Amino acid sequence: MSAFKSDNTSAVHPKVFEALQKANDGYAMPYGDDEISVRLNDVFSDMFETDVAVIPCSTGTAANSLSLALFAGPVNSVMVHTDSHVYRDECNAPEFYSGARLVTIEGENGKMTPDTLRPHITKVDPRHTAQPSAISLTQVTELGTVYSLDEIKAMTSLAKEQGLAVHMDGARFANAVASLGCSAADMTWKAGVDVLSLGLTKAGAMAAEAVVLFHPEKQSQKVREGFLRQKRAGQLLSKQRFLAAQLTAMAEDDLWLEIGRESNAKTARLCSALREIDGTELADTIDSNMTFIRLQPDQIARLQDEGLAGYMYDETRMRICCSWSTTDAEIDRFIDLVRGA
Amino acid sequence: MSAFKSDNTSAVHPKVFEALQKANDGYAMPYGDDEISVRLNDVFSDMFETDVAVIPCSTGTAANSLSLALFAGPVNSVMVHTDSHVYRDECNAPEFYSGARLVTIEGENGKMTPDTLRPHITKVDPRHTAQPSAISLTQVTELGTVYSLDEIKAMTSLAKEQGLAVHMDGARFANAVASLGCSAADMTWKAGVDVLSLGLTKAGAMAAEAVVLFHPEKQSQKVREGFLRQKRAGQLLSKQRFLAAQLTAMAEDDLWLEIGRESNAKTARLCSALREIDGTELADTIDSNMTFIRLQPDQIARLQDEGLAGYMYDETRMRICCSWSTTDAEIDRFIDLVRGA
Amino acid sequence: MSAFKSDNTSAVHPKVFEALQKANDGYAMPYGDDEISVRLNDVFSDMFETDVAVIPCSTGTAANSLSLALFAGPVNSVMVHTDSHVYRDECNAPEFYSGARLVTIEGENGKMTPDTLRPHITKVDPRHTAQPSAISLTQVTELGTVYSLDEIKAMTSLAKEQGLAVHMDGARFANAVASLGCSAADMTWKAGVDVLSLGLTKAGAMAAEAVVLFHPEKQSQKVREGFLRQKRAGQLLSKQRFLAAQLTAMAEDDLWLEIGRESNAKTARLCSALREIDGTELADTIDSNMTFIRLQPDQIARLQDEGLAGYMYDETRMRICCSWSTTDAEIDRFIDLVRGA
Amino acid sequence: MSAFKSDNTSAVHPKVFEALQKANDGYAMPYGDDEISVRLNDVFSDMFETDVAVIPCSTGTAANSLSLALFAGPVNSVMVHTDSHVYRDECNAPEFYSGARLVTIEGENGKMTPDTLRPHITKVDPRHTAQPSAISLTQVTELGTVYSLDEIKAMTSLAKEQGLAVHMDGARFANAVASLGCSAADMTWKAGVDVLSLGLTKAGAMAAEAVVLFHPEKQSQKVREGFLRQKRAGQLLSKQRFLAAQLTAMAEDDLWLEIGRESNAKTARLCSALREIDGTELADTIDSNMTFIRLQPDQIARLQDEGLAGYMYDETRMRICCSWSTTDAEIDRFIDLVRGA
Repeated sequence: MSAFKSDNTSAVHPKVFEALQKANDGYAMPYGDDEISVRLNDVFSDMFETDVAVIPCSTGTAANSLSLALFAGPVNSVMVHTDSHVYRDECNAPEFYSGARLVTIEGENGKMTPDTLRPHITKVDPRHTAQPSAISLTQVTELGTVYSLDEIKAMTSLAKEQGLAVHMDGARFANAVASLGCSAADMTWKAGVDVLSLGLTKAGAMAAEAVVLFHPEKQSQKVREGFLRQKRAGQLLSKQRFLAAQLTAMAEDDLWLEIGRESNAKTARLCSALREIDGTELADTIDSNMTFIRLQPDQIARLQDEGLAGYMYDETRMRICCSWSTTDAEIDRFIDLVRGA
Repeated sequence: MSAFKSDNTSAVHPKVFEALQKANDGYAMPYGDDEISVRLNDVFSDMFETDVAVIPCSTGTAANSLSLALFAGPVNSVMVHTDSHVYRDECNAPEFYSGARLVTIEGENGKMTPDTLRPHITKVDPRHTAQPSAISLTQVTELGTVYSLDEIKAMTSLAKEQGLAVHMDGARFANAVASLGCSAADMTWKAGVDVLSLGLTKAGAMAAEAVVLFHPEKQSQKVREGFLRQKRAGQLLSKQRFLAAQLTAMAEDDLWLEIGRESNAKTARLCSALREIDGTELADTIDSNMTFIRLQPDQIARLQDEGLAGYMYDETRMRICCSWSTTDAEIDRFIDLVRGA
Repeated sequence: MSAFKSDNTSAVHPKVFEALQKANDGYAMPYGDDEISVRLNDVFSDMFETDVAVIPCSTGTAANSLSLALFAGPVNSVMVHTDSHVYRDECNAPEFYSGARLVTIEGENGKMTPDTLRPHITKVDPRHTAQPSAISLTQVTELGTVYSLDEIKAMTSLAKEQGLAVHMDGARFANAVASLGCSAADMTWKAGVDVLSLGLTKAGAMAAEAVVLFHPEKQSQKVREGFLRQKRAGQLLSKQRFLAAQLTAMAEDDLWLEIGRESNAKTARLCSALREIDGTELADTIDSNMTFIRLQPDQIARLQDEGLAGYMYDETRMRICCSWSTTDAEIDRFIDLVRGA
Repeated sequence: MSAFKSDNTSAVHPKVFEALQKANDGYAMPYGDDEISVRLNDVFSDMFETDVAVIPCSTGTAANSLSLALFAGPVNSVMVHTDSHVYRDECNAPEFYSGARLVTIEGENGKMTPDTLRPHITKVDPRHTAQPSAISLTQVTELGTVYSLDEIKAMTSLAKEQGLAVHMDGARFANAVASLGCSAADMTWKAGVDVLSLGLTKAGAMAAEAVVLFHPEKQSQKVREGFLRQKRAGQLLSKQRFLAAQLTAMAEDDLWLEIGRESNAKTARLCSALREIDGTELADTIDSNMTFIRLQPDQIARLQDEGLAGYMYDETRMRICCSWSTTDAEIDRFIDLVRGA
């Protein structure tokens, strides 16, 4: 079992677990009518400094797919990066929930650009092919890079110009905000994002994700439909208080952001040390808590022997990821093993 | 908040919560590759005294819909009771997951019978309408009644005779088994059930349901497809160890069955007392932890004033439900309030 | 081969065939850009005395399903009669196209009433079950009866009151209008119908049906989506001029209405004679070109021997149907055979 | 209106129209029970020199989508060329019918190769992404090229090796067989094709396509499901005799092949002449009745002025297509206009 394979190998953060214990007291109404659930919109409206509608989900796949289904239907297509999670790792769930097609766009560093996006949304036959209705940005990207605010705005501007909605897959939302040093608002609705999959499981929850719909007052029908689609997808939890408790615990005192900063810092420290070791090859900048590194076979072998290797992308490239639970000792041991000490 | 409104208003059973705490230790592989998840098939094969394949889900709606999708496709129909949860309370989820139609069948006490079922599956145009491929029995039914083993076998015999598969919605599986005094095996595969939605949330888990597929060796393709459909539905939890821990804790030492017996007994005691009070009207037999009672307006008013009323089905009929957490004091108080003491 | 089994056993009406021949001249743009197709909206706006948008389809199943998909989505339900074609005879096509559920409503003479409809659309859980968004009226009904204008208005009033759209399955539209002695407008948009499946194949076309969307100016997005859904359903014909030619030929000089009147009259004459014969049992009124009659075994046997029997609904009940092509000789022979002459 | 824009701008071939007239005689059973329809399997089993099951459809989009739905389900993916009709021009219909994803593969001349295909089907995560279950070859390709028998076999071998089924989109089937000088059998089941969309509309029918399923005896369940899916898709024509009559007329005396040869020859003659004219640029070989040519602006302008231009792919590239109805005079005029005479 590796500490570095992914941030979802980590346990539940103590503060989140504490919230679960606290919620486990007496009776509560089911299906979102409990006291914690009914406050979710308020809690996250505070976090995002604007009114939002929050639809809790048990997985990121569900949150992504539900988000997209609100902005893309059976005659539509959604523009995504070729390496995006929605395309690569969700077994047709986005298509299942929405009926829309995902159109893949290549791009360096896991990012789409206005130049690569434009032809896919402007040169579309108006009758014989699915009509683009949304784009989906993954932030942090699958390669561990982070779109700058300007890069996001360049994409959302083009999307709006062409009448498309903007979804952000925020499976590592905390790490991205921490990386940019901006606010949750800055990286989302202020930058033109219409709907966010807010992922808090990788940050340290047990299973807590949410569709965050901005400008709910302008799209009350989508809010209503979103909750019905949550139910239809088997995502309305019977004892939702426990999911709501996790979401709320993460929002409180910006725990999510603190975790994002810490896990980024751990990866930075690890990479900073690795960079100095012969035979390693790292990205020029480490944007988040996740990155890909190249190592020598003996370095890989030593890490694997001690169960500290990350996820091998190919023979020489390893993905490493720190989480709230990664310890200094684990990082030091990883460095030592690569160094061969 | 009412103790009697539903069994899903209850908190998490201490033994299940303890299992969550125990599972929250260190790193574990995600997506079902953790140590607890990989043992699920074995744990439940023991419980059912035969090989089973277990697909964990976060809601009963998902478990039902996924189960049905394995036995009914887009050109098929599934026979269900008019009052069944799959038809009444899942917002098209079964149709969504499977593509099939639900055909409703009336029946007293929440039960279908061979006589009411037969015409719906034998008089079907072979080309112009959807072809029946499965039936779905709800056990405990939505009315709190329980099919006897003979009643189940009469239905499954007819189904098999006509080439249909049999699904059991076991949202209150523990209560049904406890009620019949049989084994989990007796009520399922030994009685002709092909796939079970095993519900443990109402019994006392946080969010733990599962598709239990019998005879997996004969239908390896369905097992494989089931797991892919779990992913596609957004039901493959990232940190699945916590869902697996709940399921396992419930199986251990037959905790599920103990809870089923206790909650049945509580409802029996409550009803036994209510039956003696003027103005009440109860079913002849109380099969499970749930039943519908008729009360006088003043009796209802007193219960509502103290937050102990069950769910009002109509003006005079109240559904009451006991759970693992219902206390003797709550039951006594309920009785007193009805009695007007 | 029976003249009386159904109106779709008839050949193509000479005037329609002539139109096909005329259209088969030289080159024409495909996919609806031909000269005949581009005039369809005008032709049918004349017929309906209001602006309409026309989406041609090759089958009634497609026209019904496409119509419903514009007014009911995956979280919705559509209210239909238990015996309706959309429920009984389209193998889940309406559900397939729309994602919605069909909710069945019983009713005498193949008709729903406000009283039977009301509880199904007013007592719906707002979160746990599919939300009603449309009703579908079959006119002529599957039993050969015809809703009066008042009956239609009573239904559409209730639907509107509850925010539901109204679809009319007009597989035998011509017969219904002829029966009521009203205009096409009277029976549709003037009576509160939002979308019509206009069936002209049974009237005498080769394969010509259409979704007729009323008030297109108020729902331009539905019009746009309708054409995209037509394509997605495999219903946009490559050489659409031939489908358009059939539709246009039927509209010209009210050929459809003339055929409707004639086939109604033929059935009326047939029934009028049958009514006088011992052993027959007929409906009190014959509304359209189709009706169900009861005959004695020997009467049925004689009809079957000569291949003139209608479709046997059960042992004694026969559905008979006249079409544009039914001859006086065939009617006389039918009468003689029943009479035993 | 251009003679050269596409082969679907042509009228119905006289022999097909004659068959429609002949079929328009008296009564016939609906929904495929007529005398012509019941012989379809035999007629096409002769054509393909093996037993086949034939499911008639009214459009190529429907035939493609229905074919794919029989070999790819909601947890699957289908490998297609980036420029294929199923991907570019069918508005999500294949995804709609099947639930599967289309995965695009680049390739010169409109063709996939084993080398470009292999990584897409061998490096697939077994749990997190859709599982490849079929490939779809377009023959004639969208660029007018034709896979050789060896090229087809190389693809089908790889597909079989990996457990995938093979679909052929034969919208221009006749042209491909004529081009290869082989038999219908050689290019399909003998080369490893499991299911064919046989397109005869472009060849000269009014609207006649078919799913042709090879080895029906080995997959009786797919045959059965195919017909139910035909109905569910709104593709079971009420008066199917007319669709069957077109298919049969095309098969008789190999009319389809004669037309394929003739339209190929016309395009060959046209291109042969164009190649000699200054300013034109043509493909090295002309495989079928369709090709792309580059012309000078003045050449294009002259063609457009007389309504003889093909479909402009971009500013300089024109797609030209001959059909059964293209006349020598039209070809000569086209040549003259390009030449500037």
